[in-house]
Amino acid sequence: MSVDELTGDALARACADVMLARDHASRSLGIVLEEARPGYARTALVIGSTMVNGHAIAHGGVTFTLADSTFAFACNSRNEPNVALQASISYISAVRLGERLIAEGREQSSRGRTGVYDVTVTREDGELVALFRGTCYRIKGTVLEGAAS
Amino acid sequence: MSVDELTGDALARACADVMLARDHASRSLGIVLEEARPGYARTALVIGSTMVNGHAIAHGGVTFTLADSTFAFACNSRNEPNVALQASISYISAVRLGERLIAEGREQSSRGRTGVYDVTVTREDGELVALFRGTCYRIKGTVLEGAAS
Amino acid sequence: MSVDELTGDALARACADVMLARDHASRSLGIVLEEARPGYARTALVIGSTMVNGHAIAHGGVTFTLADSTFAFACNSRNEPNVALQASISYISAVRLGERLIAEGREQSSRGRTGVYDVTVTREDGELVALFRGTCYRIKGTVLEGAAS
Amino acid sequence: MSVDELTGDALARACADVMLARDHASRSLGIVLEEARPGYARTALVIGSTMVNGHAIAHGGVTFTLADSTFAFACNSRNEPNVALQASISYISAVRLGERLIAEGREQSSRGRTGVYDVTVTREDGELVALFRGTCYRIKGTVLEGAAS
Repeated sequence: MSVDELTGDALARACADVMLARDHASRSLGIVLEEARPGYARTALVIGSTMVNGHAIAHGGVTFTLADSTFAFACNSRNEPNVALQASISYISAVRLGERLIAEGREQSSRGRTGVYDVTVTREDGELVALFRGTCYRIKGTVLEGAAS
Repeated sequence: MSVDELTGDALARACADVMLARDHASRSLGIVLEEARPGYARTALVIGSTMVNGHAIAHGGVTFTLADSTFAFACNSRNEPNVALQASISYISAVRLGERLIAEGREQSSRGRTGVYDVTVTREDGELVALFRGTCYRIKGTVLEGAAS
Repeated sequence: MSVDELTGDALARACADVMLARDHASRSLGIVLEEARPGYARTALVIGSTMVNGHAIAHGGVTFTLADSTFAFACNSRNEPNVALQASISYISAVRLGERLIAEGREQSSRGRTGVYDVTVTREDGELVALFRGTCYRIKGTVLEGAAS
Repeated sequence: MSVDELTGDALARACADVMLARDHASRSLGIVLEEARPGYARTALVIGSTMVNGHAIAHGGVTFTLADSTFAFACNSRNEPNVALQASISYISAVRLGERLIAEGREQSSRGRTGVYDVTVTREDGELVALFRGTCYRIKGTVLEGAAS
């Protein structure tokens, strides 16, 4: 089946797979793509020793990066490339070395060329770690063709 | 001279040095502390191959992490520990592999137990890369004693 | 029954009623309190002629004010006074003169002295108008005693 | 001189004047336009009795509305219409009945169809009241022609 025939969940997964394959930063951290659907993505990350401070607490930038990648997978899930204009994060609870985080990103709005996505970051037991909200802007081209180049 | 005798710029520098020494995440990326003063910090980072995507563009999470560390150095510069409650970032221009970013964080307000800090991220030629604003909250203890424990 | 005996929904409603009674700005616009529970509030507002521009589109500040009041009712619903530190709003769709907006505020987190609340603003048919997120900080005193003074 | 001949500061002033003339919400509050230049606007507002709570403290929505109008004047100052996508505000100090606020909005970035603007709200003595940052998106048409319709 060619890329042109992909739709819905299969297209979303193909877009996210291609993005993660290209994304050295996310792969270098160890971010795992668990699920992608149109307007949705779920990822996971185990906090490693290069992601913490001397008190074994994860750097806020690591939690942000996980949420930001999840936002990117969700807002590029329809094979239309989007770039982040702006994002904010509220930190709820500290994360420790070795903990596994789950990030779920959901489209809240997509109108014209702009969109709003919310990402929640939780521990595996469901406890809230951070809330992220991002604004994106659609640019020309496609996600999958971009991968081919 | 003991830690208790440090004031002003020397205290700010000692606090930032201790924080960076503990911060495996910032050191792992290669974030360099260039200057610390009360309510102020300036850092630098060269974008490396593990910080970019397949188009050699830096991950937004890397720019955020640089700004967030700079925010932390600036808001902990008086030996009073502060934690981030919330932060936002506006992305202005894309950054490429090999570029050197400069982040400058400045206290905008510090009242009671909360503060607001702005961080600007620029290229070496001064072009704006991102604007970051963080809200922090003072907790008990000290920055330098924390390091000793 | 005295104020001291109020708990749960009754206490939340009493706090919100007292706050709205004092709040000339919200009452001047016509904001109506529809429901208050612990960590939750729902309000409504009909867009009037002093809230719009020449194209009969509601000013973003009016939508923000509705969301901000709803945030205040929700985060003061346990008779512990909280002040807003920071808030952000994402505008999804324009609102016209005469439309009735519904705002629902929900606690996402309340830990130590800080909290995070989300407010969604919708039309009566459920269409999303704006997403608001606020950070609050608990101060001393009580909401209801404050009203008595 | 026709509208087509206006440039620079004169064009910025004409755009802001037309926007304020249409903006019943800003005029109803009493917002005054003090200056407009390309990418810049300065406004003022005296806090009146319908803008405060029972403790004579201005509603956060009023401060936001002042900042939001200033943002709008600044980002529409080149006769290219822009709409707000997102905005955030950090509250620094409370404002009392009768105080006069000054809001200054400045373009931080304008690239392609999106822009970032910062607005500072101060008392007349220069004390900081709030920091506002807004993201805008350029739509088709012109500001001044819109006024004619």
